[in-house]
Amino acid sequence: MTDLTALNAITTVPVKLGDRSYDILIGAGLIDQAGREIAKRAKSVRVAIVTDETVAGLHLDRLMRSLSAAGIDSTAILVAPGEKSKGFATLETVTNAILAARLERGDIVVAFGGGVIGDLAGFAAGIARRGMGFIQMPTSLLAQVDSSVGGKTGINTAHGKNLVGVFYQPQLVLADTDVLDTLSPREFRAGYAEVAKYGLIDRPDFFTWLEKNWRGIFDGGPERTEAIAISCRSKADVVARDERETGDRALLNLGHTFGHALETATNYDSARLVHGEGVSIGMVLAHQFSAKMNLASPDDARRVEAHLRGVGLPVSIAGIPGDLPPAEKLMDYIAQDKKVARGALTFILTRGIGQSFIAKDVPPSAVLSFLQEKHPK
Amino acid sequence: MTDLTALNAITTVPVKLGDRSYDILIGAGLIDQAGREIAKRAKSVRVAIVTDETVAGLHLDRLMRSLSAAGIDSTAILVAPGEKSKGFATLETVTNAILAARLERGDIVVAFGGGVIGDLAGFAAGIARRGMGFIQMPTSLLAQVDSSVGGKTGINTAHGKNLVGVFYQPQLVLADTDVLDTLSPREFRAGYAEVAKYGLIDRPDFFTWLEKNWRGIFDGGPERTEAIAISCRSKADVVARDERETGDRALLNLGHTFGHALETATNYDSARLVHGEGVSIGMVLAHQFSAKMNLASPDDARRVEAHLRGVGLPVSIAGIPGDLPPAEKLMDYIAQDKKVARGALTFILTRGIGQSFIAKDVPPSAVLSFLQEKHPK
Repeated sequence: MTDLTALNAITTVPVKLGDRSYDILIGAGLIDQAGREIAKRAKSVRVAIVTDETVAGLHLDRLMRSLSAAGIDSTAILVAPGEKSKGFATLETVTNAILAARLERGDIVVAFGGGVIGDLAGFAAGIARRGMGFIQMPTSLLAQVDSSVGGKTGINTAHGKNLVGVFYQPQLVLADTDVLDTLSPREFRAGYAEVAKYGLIDRPDFFTWLEKNWRGIFDGGPERTEAIAISCRSKADVVARDERETGDRALLNLGHTFGHALETATNYDSARLVHGEGVSIGMVLAHQFSAKMNLASPDDARRVEAHLRGVGLPVSIAGIPGDLPPAEKLMDYIAQDKKVARGALTFILTRGIGQSFIAKDVPPSAVLSFLQEKHPK
Repeated sequence: MTDLTALNAITTVPVKLGDRSYDILIGAGLIDQAGREIAKRAKSVRVAIVTDETVAGLHLDRLMRSLSAAGIDSTAILVAPGEKSKGFATLETVTNAILAARLERGDIVVAFGGGVIGDLAGFAAGIARRGMGFIQMPTSLLAQVDSSVGGKTGINTAHGKNLVGVFYQPQLVLADTDVLDTLSPREFRAGYAEVAKYGLIDRPDFFTWLEKNWRGIFDGGPERTEAIAISCRSKADVVARDERETGDRALLNLGHTFGHALETATNYDSARLVHGEGVSIGMVLAHQFSAKMNLASPDDARRVEAHLRGVGLPVSIAGIPGDLPPAEKLMDYIAQDKKVARGALTFILTRGIGQSFIAKDVPPSAVLSFLQEKHPK
């Protein structure tokens, strides 16, 4: 009976990508069912779990027990927590550890952690033996609603975030909503910025629903699973339309061009700014800039700012602790961002809540003067 | 008139891979036409040429002049020559140099060199911005007939050769047969081992033709272009059938399992053994082992050995200068090779000249006792 109840609680979101299609399973207590779900789909595999020390301390034993109970041999590869692990040095270490474990092509790398772990382990899985089996088990809200879905993997370099990586789809995503209770409130909020993003891109009703129901998501009510499932479905829709970001997928970058520049400016120092916080500020800036360009009403920008501030997220450049480089330098970081095409800037702008679009000819001078206004010397 | 003659001399071999199809152009003096051929296929791109110091000294000026004449901006990224550049450290350097040049996704990385450069630059092109444009301009015989075709890229690690990489198809291959005159005789011979391989896999008539015509290939006669075109066509056929090596493509590894083990055993020291030499010894061993297993006639093994020795290639483990680890250690290297599947060894064996096949259940004990016989303490 317990078993059936647990199964009933799982929400499945399919990601339709032809022969690379896969399911996202979302539900409470999924870690304990991981072994069974993997064994169902892959016969006699071995597993390397890539995780960080924090997640390992909280949840690794349970995952390894679940795998073992399903007859799956596993080995754990631990990295230091935090964005600094998303670089060439740790990529090399993790890839070599996968090879040292003598895993074969059909065996599986499990990314067990937040966005950093998913991007890093997915990249390693995509290049070890030119591509191994790969499963995402996201443990942060951000990873569950965003980075674990869609196959983007990568690392950061001195030239910017995520500029090096591969498109590599997982064969399964297992999102245990219970583990989110172990996140710090700050980390949970940062992930929430990506949830709100789906409303702002093209689901105005979802944004309105979030304005009313966000407390249930934070408190672990039924709204949490619902919001995660809607977010995953939104992302899966966009990815199915444009897997390799030649078009529509760029919409998912709403808030990210400004956000990445701010992350670069704070040297990825998570004490000052984490990714979701950069996205929160970036989304507010994108709405304010759209209003300044007379594309959207300033009321919409104020509504976005009010909601994100309401949940406790930073909403302005001034909200970042410590000194920042001047607007001109931020502009440089934006120009090096990967969404630049031949001198003209590509930005995700908006005509209002849930009406985002890809603007391909944004004049750099307009962005610079907007930044100078928002971030005076 | 000169122009027309040059154009007429180009042989085109298509590689059919659906939306990743591309052409291999083979001919004398192609470097001087590179700018025109690239401009025909890609509008207003910029190019980063990845090459090594040796190739740069001999041919880089001509290539950059050809690009410039076609209105294509280019920048050169130089690495040290040799297999040691095929590792994580140089991969990071090259990838960062591509980003530092501010190339965009649609711009092109040109691999201009031998197999090391093709594998390294192809890997960097496949991961920089999650995949840039990519063109192969192979300058060694080995690269022209083998490594530049088919989309395998990669680097070596302490765990073995080519264990880390991506499948990433070029959009064009330009093989200038004239540049092969600048190779050392030893390097040319090493590439010839891969030419002979295509005969031994499934083209017995080609192997017979090679036995008669190999001098024309070495001397730069019309046989050279013919042999390169037949080799590329052979490889393209196999790759079109099985791009990601889930089946038939493994045939291309004839001689490579033994060969890789010998390269690992000599620590990739090119003074002692280069890849093609390892393949030459490996192909002879594969035929001898097949004969020992009563699969093929010993006469065929002797014929393969005689031809490869005749062109000046090493044909036995004893032919490698310096000390080697014992047979048991060679066996360890073989077990870590990527063609291992769940304990049973997969080998390319043969029923005779041009009758190679994939043998999936080769007993490790039989391989070990064969190695002990061929490489006594």
